[in-house]
Amino acid sequence: MSKFSNERTASLVPYTPGEQPKKNQKYIKLNTNESPFAPSPRAQKMAADAAARLNLYCDPTCRELTELFAEKNGVEPECVLMTNGSDEILNFAFMAFCGEGRPAVFPDITYGFYPVFAELNGVPYETVPLREDFSINVEDYIGINKNIFIANPNAPTGLALPLSDIERIVASNPDNIVVIDEAYVDFGAESAVQLTKRYKNLIVTQTFSKSRSLAGARLGAGIADAALIADMNTVKYSTNPYNVNSMTQAAGIGSLLDEDYTRKNLDVIKSAREYTAKELSALGFTLTNSSANFIFAAHPDIDGEKLYFELKARGILVRHFSGERIKNYNRITVGLPKDMQTLVKTICEILESIK
Amino acid sequence: MSKFSNERTASLVPYTPGEQPKKNQKYIKLNTNESPFAPSPRAQKMAADAAARLNLYCDPTCRELTELFAEKNGVEPECVLMTNGSDEILNFAFMAFCGEGRPAVFPDITYGFYPVFAELNGVPYETVPLREDFSINVEDYIGINKNIFIANPNAPTGLALPLSDIERIVASNPDNIVVIDEAYVDFGAESAVQLTKRYKNLIVTQTFSKSRSLAGARLGAGIADAALIADMNTVKYSTNPYNVNSMTQAAGIGSLLDEDYTRKNLDVIKSAREYTAKELSALGFTLTNSSANFIFAAHPDIDGEKLYFELKARGILVRHFSGERIKNYNRITVGLPKDMQTLVKTICEILESIK
Repeated sequence: MSKFSNERTASLVPYTPGEQPKKNQKYIKLNTNESPFAPSPRAQKMAADAAARLNLYCDPTCRELTELFAEKNGVEPECVLMTNGSDEILNFAFMAFCGEGRPAVFPDITYGFYPVFAELNGVPYETVPLREDFSINVEDYIGINKNIFIANPNAPTGLALPLSDIERIVASNPDNIVVIDEAYVDFGAESAVQLTKRYKNLIVTQTFSKSRSLAGARLGAGIADAALIADMNTVKYSTNPYNVNSMTQAAGIGSLLDEDYTRKNLDVIKSAREYTAKELSALGFTLTNSSANFIFAAHPDIDGEKLYFELKARGILVRHFSGERIKNYNRITVGLPKDMQTLVKTICEILESIK
Repeated sequence: MSKFSNERTASLVPYTPGEQPKKNQKYIKLNTNESPFAPSPRAQKMAADAAARLNLYCDPTCRELTELFAEKNGVEPECVLMTNGSDEILNFAFMAFCGEGRPAVFPDITYGFYPVFAELNGVPYETVPLREDFSINVEDYIGINKNIFIANPNAPTGLALPLSDIERIVASNPDNIVVIDEAYVDFGAESAVQLTKRYKNLIVTQTFSKSRSLAGARLGAGIADAALIADMNTVKYSTNPYNVNSMTQAAGIGSLLDEDYTRKNLDVIKSAREYTAKELSALGFTLTNSSANFIFAAHPDIDGEKLYFELKARGILVRHFSGERIKNYNRITVGLPKDMQTLVKTICEILESIK
């Protein structure tokens, strides 16, 4: 920290993104919940075409993309805000609605960026412990009169709440916002998007990074009552008016026009997830019932961190978190079926070697 | 503003980006200081190729791009931070170094985003009036013991300070940061980049939007002592770790590998600027001596706003600002020589029509 640094930011503990191997390092990469499939051909083509027009600024309103995304979701365009990844819409929600006297609440085990955004924006926050089995106890969020952030499915557990539970939480906190972070919703959870039409305090956030294979393009979105979107637009235009570049806007449009492609990929991933869960279960792993594109698993015979390093030594990257309650687990992204077969085979060898 | 909005952001007055015509509206677009030239073929090609790999996250460290940009600028990679447009590095500087007890100072007439960033981050700020001729009085910034933001060349005036003046300002405020915003430096001002090696309090910001024809890609950079860059990286990893998407990183690399292309375009634009300035002068306009890719001009016989509307009605977009001291001026981006000829011809007609 330099002598020029101010108090507000000097004490920040930043988010740690998942490891990105260098170009010459070859891994089976199951550590950052990326899709193993390239973006849809149409997304690629439209993004590539946009590269020829980069001398012009991108449309700050993302009009075409916003209208198409709204249409696909059955909501009005003024109820949508497209952002630079879903991290940006989450940050906008912290900036616009949280602060002194407007605290935030989220589970103790969830997406690691929530506490970072809270600290960044000087937002007081509380974490609510998940149950022993990592499930969310809905009662902990009923009528608590605080802003609530819940990832559904949750990360890194993969556990999803049914829509009825989400609705109870939203309905019981009418004077506070409830953010439902649906980064992984396409892999098997129920979306709360339709509830945004009935509840003025609900913000649903989504991303094109996972199911739509656009992690490297940075595209996310928020869906909410138009008044909440307007508030977050004020923040956007005070921070980053041209937040989604032209190529990414084009890629997003291409992806939305190519739903079949995404659906087919989702089928493959969900089936690879079931295969992997069954195999790991048979090998003695404890697993959560994941509705996401990752598996969260621990084995009684091998420490989570040790398994992480053993896999890495054998060319497979997974993600290990050091938090006390989850340090025995690893979060394993569901990749191609053949890569999941290699994973299972490699884990067999590792377990064999420590017998 | 919704009832959920907090005090901090509810009162924000956002930045207003320049007008973006809709797809079916055809204008000669001289209003947002874009380059009239497409990005370099290499930048286009590399960006398009990157579209095929968007399922993977972009490199959060922007390693290749950072190393190349550092090399081209003769500085170490740890003295560089690549950002989502230069707006992002400016915001990071406000976030990391300004705040309560660390006020910011900038000219009364300059880039309109500085006061917005100050408000956004709760930073007390003062504006220092430019002289009557819109030049910066360097003495106003000597030893003032506050964080200083100066665009060089300044916008929308186009006036540049010599490097010796920049150095005096930086040297006389050793306990505060000085940010020199070089968005337009390639069009004719002296860069302060080399001073970052000798002064630990200097941040130079640059953009790929203007001279490098990448406005729609969103790419900027900060160059400073490694300690300042480290502080701003803390902010980056607490805000937007994947701030520069893969296609934009690739486009930036392509552009840096294609310096000749940029240089040739700069020659055309500078010569079109001289042509336009001479013609407008002959028509009775008052002009600043612009070192940027725009002209700042007022005419005694026609109100600035009226000229803006008259030009728009004839298919030419320029930018008019309503600030008291500059409301009689228009900022006119320098485009292709043929477009500047059309501009001059159209202005002739307008002046003729009001006689």
